[in-house]
Amino acid sequence: MQRGHRRPGSTAALRLSNERAILQDLLTHGPSTQSELARRTRLSNGSVSSIVRSLRGRGVLETSDTVSSGRRATLVTPRVATRRVAVGIDLGRSHIGLVIAKPGRELLAERRVRIPHGTLAEEALGQVRALLTEELRQIDRGDEDIVAVVVSVPGPIDRTTGRVVDGTILPEWVGRSAEDVSEALGLDAEICNDADAGAIAERGWGAASGVDDFLYVKIGTGIGVGVFLAGANYTGAFGIAGEIGHSTVDPGGGHCRCGNRGCLETVASVPVVLQHLSDALGRDVTREELNELAASEHRATVRVIQAAGLALGQSIAMAANTLGPRLVVLGGPLSETGDVLLEAVRGGFSRFAIAPVVEATRVELSTLGEGASARGAATMAFEHGDALAYMAGADEGGLLSGVDIKNR
Amino acid sequence: MQRGHRRPGSTAALRLSNERAILQDLLTHGPSTQSELARRTRLSNGSVSSIVRSLRGRGVLETSDTVSSGRRATLVTPRVATRRVAVGIDLGRSHIGLVIAKPGRELLAERRVRIPHGTLAEEALGQVRALLTEELRQIDRGDEDIVAVVVSVPGPIDRTTGRVVDGTILPEWVGRSAEDVSEALGLDAEICNDADAGAIAERGWGAASGVDDFLYVKIGTGIGVGVFLAGANYTGAFGIAGEIGHSTVDPGGGHCRCGNRGCLETVASVPVVLQHLSDALGRDVTREELNELAASEHRATVRVIQAAGLALGQSIAMAANTLGPRLVVLGGPLSETGDVLLEAVRGGFSRFAIAPVVEATRVELSTLGEGASARGAATMAFEHGDALAYMAGADEGGLLSGVDIKNR
Repeated sequence: MQRGHRRPGSTAALRLSNERAILQDLLTHGPSTQSELARRTRLSNGSVSSIVRSLRGRGVLETSDTVSSGRRATLVTPRVATRRVAVGIDLGRSHIGLVIAKPGRELLAERRVRIPHGTLAEEALGQVRALLTEELRQIDRGDEDIVAVVVSVPGPIDRTTGRVVDGTILPEWVGRSAEDVSEALGLDAEICNDADAGAIAERGWGAASGVDDFLYVKIGTGIGVGVFLAGANYTGAFGIAGEIGHSTVDPGGGHCRCGNRGCLETVASVPVVLQHLSDALGRDVTREELNELAASEHRATVRVIQAAGLALGQSIAMAANTLGPRLVVLGGPLSETGDVLLEAVRGGFSRFAIAPVVEATRVELSTLGEGASARGAATMAFEHGDALAYMAGADEGGLLSGVDIKNR
Repeated sequence: MQRGHRRPGSTAALRLSNERAILQDLLTHGPSTQSELARRTRLSNGSVSSIVRSLRGRGVLETSDTVSSGRRATLVTPRVATRRVAVGIDLGRSHIGLVIAKPGRELLAERRVRIPHGTLAEEALGQVRALLTEELRQIDRGDEDIVAVVVSVPGPIDRTTGRVVDGTILPEWVGRSAEDVSEALGLDAEICNDADAGAIAERGWGAASGVDDFLYVKIGTGIGVGVFLAGANYTGAFGIAGEIGHSTVDPGGGHCRCGNRGCLETVASVPVVLQHLSDALGRDVTREELNELAASEHRATVRVIQAAGLALGQSIAMAANTLGPRLVVLGGPLSETGDVLLEAVRGGFSRFAIAPVVEATRVELSTLGEGASARGAATMAFEHGDALAYMAGADEGGLLSGVDIKNR
């Protein structure tokens, strides 16, 4: 779960990897005291202090005196390059989300557009490419300013192959890899799971700020969980975790695309909720209308959401019994039905989780809503890109030798 | 998940904590090369080499030349004190397990005795005390040789209070703490969850050797999971994890002691399996007979176990979908029915887990059987006790100042 200082090799390699660990941490958390850096990177205070001195000498960061917990401390601030950006993209079944950000969680652009259901991968990526070009132009940037791109997709990714595996709700994406995405965009890109991206965003910018152990539940066309344990996103031994969408909640229930009956997704996904409500009202109900009806506490709508929420609460309870998290964050499109969903999920959760878990685990709504996955992808881009490439003084200090960044 | 070098404080404190991290690691893994120590403790090669030199000078460990991956390396061997031992105790609803061990997984004593169902905590602990005294005498040891005691109990332990919480299958134990156990035994003792202890034992001595991400499922009167993630036992944000016994597998099924219907424990626990088989055969069937009937592939017995195994496979599949482990180890009393159970659980697992998890996750039987939790508790005792107290040269080197060990 740690990067940068795991494989020592040589003293010089260790030093370089420790430098990068500190810069990476500053990119993620913003200006920090030396003690905070030592605690989070698990380097000794002595090492941190020595590395900070050296990087300051090379113009990569600045230090100033501050007071922390009543004691004098040294605040470390990275000298961020003015032009370089990270890009996070969220590809859903019927939308594209795009975030362009600078280190320190500074948003330069945030866009979201609808695309037709079932859009082919090539076509969706073509639209992403056009959208990105347009947004870059508006903020006076070009491809050469991008350090890293991460694309969030709504399906499990096998870490051993780097490919989207069967089980995704985007069948047109099965078998695709980061290389395919990179080629289509003409940019080096990584791919990640959308629920993982949402979890990372909620911890960095949203409802899970400061919480080390939590579950982020994304409820959309599919249902997936981003898992945070001991302060890190846990993605399983082979890249797949949090797949609660196929928990059985109704053994004799409807057939699921996985072949089983009564999976959570057959009861609580957005299309199913819309279908149930449309059946009840005798007309087609859209997502926007669902949110409005929920906000006005329309009786049939509340009941349909309650049924979905109860099942969600049950499946989330099983995951929480297994992991004992502090917090569950409800995100994704269905979370926009707000308190109606929240109360129903809480009801199911407290009915099915074991007593000590009910007592210790909070269930809350996402504070980022639909924008979570794109923001999380941008946060991951900061981690995937080379930290040095964002630093103002890195070029002059010769630190970028060996770093693959276009505008060196 | 790491101990020893997390809170630096001062350089001297950091050095001491790094020394202990290295000794602790040697206790757990036995003689190791300096590179292995660096990798596992995440200290730099330079630090490890410097600490090893210093500890060797003080007589605490020895070094010798060896070859690792075709390269010359330095093998580090702790000079273990001849008399000091760790004690692991497994308290079940109807048994007491006891292990006395020296560092390097050397068993000096391993005992298991039956106690009547529902034995009160005080009485059980009195028996543990008598058993321990007897076993110590046989190996020519006394209380003064014990460095640490860990007692495994079959229920969740709230880390914030250190007490066994409601939900345990030993109602007579709810609210008990490590202090209560220590007082009854006249020895400093820690308590731990039995499934966690089993997982630790399987990784150290059994079926999960070398596997970083796995689930150990203990199937007895209760059903619990010990969770290993990224090489460490994960016990949740507040000490509770792996509680799959109350997964709903049969919504309209029998009433569970938790108040819900159709929990896994109402379908697959040992008492339920025995009851079903007794009903089928029209006479009382004991655990020993269950194992014999299973071994002889007695038809009704196989079917009863298959029904339990299918439900177990389903609940384990939900946990595996959430965590994506490499391996599931089936342990506890029911695992002694062997391949009949294994095949049934595999059937349920492959039916209910998502396809990539079915492909990547093995399901195997425990190789330690009933003895797992006591061995795991002994392994934890090595981690809880001060590593220095086991070292032959520690007294002379003055390293034990501040260490609370009785026979200094």
